[in-house]
Amino acid sequence: MHSELWVEEKFQDFLGLKFKVEKVLFSGKSEFQTVDVVETKGHGKMLLNDGLIMVTERDEFAYHDMITHVPLFTHPAPKNVLVIGGGDGGTAREVLRHVNVEKCTMVEIDGMVVDACREHIPQTSKDLAHEKLTLIIGDGVEFVKNTKEKFDVIIVDSTDPIGPAQPLFGEEFYQDVFNCLTDDGIVVSQGESSWYAMDIQQSLLKVLNAVFPNSYLYSFSNLTYPGGLWSFTFASKKYHPTKDFDTQRVVDSGLEFDYYNSSLHQAAFALPNFVLKGLDGLIDN
Amino acid sequence: MHSELWVEEKFQDFLGLKFKVEKVLFSGKSEFQTVDVVETKGHGKMLLNDGLIMVTERDEFAYHDMITHVPLFTHPAPKNVLVIGGGDGGTAREVLRHVNVEKCTMVEIDGMVVDACREHIPQTSKDLAHEKLTLIIGDGVEFVKNTKEKFDVIIVDSTDPIGPAQPLFGEEFYQDVFNCLTDDGIVVSQGESSWYAMDIQQSLLKVLNAVFPNSYLYSFSNLTYPGGLWSFTFASKKYHPTKDFDTQRVVDSGLEFDYYNSSLHQAAFALPNFVLKGLDGLIDN
Repeated sequence: MHSELWVEEKFQDFLGLKFKVEKVLFSGKSEFQTVDVVETKGHGKMLLNDGLIMVTERDEFAYHDMITHVPLFTHPAPKNVLVIGGGDGGTAREVLRHVNVEKCTMVEIDGMVVDACREHIPQTSKDLAHEKLTLIIGDGVEFVKNTKEKFDVIIVDSTDPIGPAQPLFGEEFYQDVFNCLTDDGIVVSQGESSWYAMDIQQSLLKVLNAVFPNSYLYSFSNLTYPGGLWSFTFASKKYHPTKDFDTQRVVDSGLEFDYYNSSLHQAAFALPNFVLKGLDGLIDN
Repeated sequence: MHSELWVEEKFQDFLGLKFKVEKVLFSGKSEFQTVDVVETKGHGKMLLNDGLIMVTERDEFAYHDMITHVPLFTHPAPKNVLVIGGGDGGTAREVLRHVNVEKCTMVEIDGMVVDACREHIPQTSKDLAHEKLTLIIGDGVEFVKNTKEKFDVIIVDSTDPIGPAQPLFGEEFYQDVFNCLTDDGIVVSQGESSWYAMDIQQSLLKVLNAVFPNSYLYSFSNLTYPGGLWSFTFASKKYHPTKDFDTQRVVDSGLEFDYYNSSLHQAAFALPNFVLKGLDGLIDN
């Protein structure tokens, strides 16, 4: 074609992020959302759910390193891990690099996301057939309500709190998460933008505070999300994310990362004053 | 008007950042560049030079806090400070909050930027008539070549290395900067994006390494620059930006900040692995 193809993510009515598209690889509509995979210029392949950018090949390592390795290196011996959401497979891929993890269960509500990423984004989906992985296409909310298993770490790798992910920001869900965590369990969740969505952060942290003794927020740089600065919440029954973090475990793992390192693990919990003020009383950073 | 007005910053040919514009407040063309001030929806007033976003009222505190307070709290007693560029006035404003600073000289090449910000963006320009400020409309390159003064801290608050700011990324300029710094002087410079412009970072750091015994990179979140993660370089004759940083000086200053704090000062020097790898041998972080 001769005309230019771009994909644009609008934020409210005053901001737009535009990415040049070379080719549309997949477009579908599941019972939950629209699902698109495009080949971009400059950012590799990109997954969009309901028109919102989920991952790009260029920067997905930042998100997946930080959502995974912060809890898995804080917990001294994570053996059983649950991922809720994360249909592209990148979070499960990082969990499975930890040799001490014996089992990883991933519960993704939308099979179309998994199938599209399996076919078009092997970079993130390549370990979805891993022998330690149990992949369930189903509702994470129902799963944590009904499971009899106990998990050392639960990672809530969700989309924004609109559409299918909305219940994943509620108190009932987190009460169930609490109940299926071990006595020293940790839950880390996609935590939105402090610049643009502090209201959602406040609301999520209020829920976490109602259920968990300690809640924290940490941040990282996501190249392709609005504003760049993005966050994860960290709620814990026992461990402090920096004081109980043993840097030697990172060395001993022998793992190499493109984003994560021990210094950054600790630095990620140092937040700008406007975030500390906005979340005053809601975080134990 | 009934049609929608947006301003769009293109990065290369594959990325666009669009901001909704309510009103164009100023549009001019100086001998150096185009200068525009617009009232945006969602980000307050915005200054653009040659179509590139310089500052917005919504997030300028992040940039100005981090370019100013990191060197001014690392140096134990900064009395004489030089700002090169920084025509919007935000950097000078933050320098002048330090009561131990006796004199701040600001050398901005483009009088049109200063005048436009004086008229339309008082939030950044409000202290340009401060009694401790000497404002020179002139060439920073010539200034550091010819001045007989010695400065404790020099802040190079420049645009990108195209157009008028190009010489501010060269070795001759930094040799002159070295010569007009005191024996324990520090220079901090606008350091571009590690995601999108690591080639410029490498080139700037090679220049700094050729002149200074120690060079560092630190990062912060700039809401309205492409990719969000942005950097400053820190080159020093003597002081280490974190080991020689005394957090008590921040407490004693009595100053309050919306972005900067002592923990963030230190955390800003913890960089993702892809940055450490890309700048291997060029930084002493």
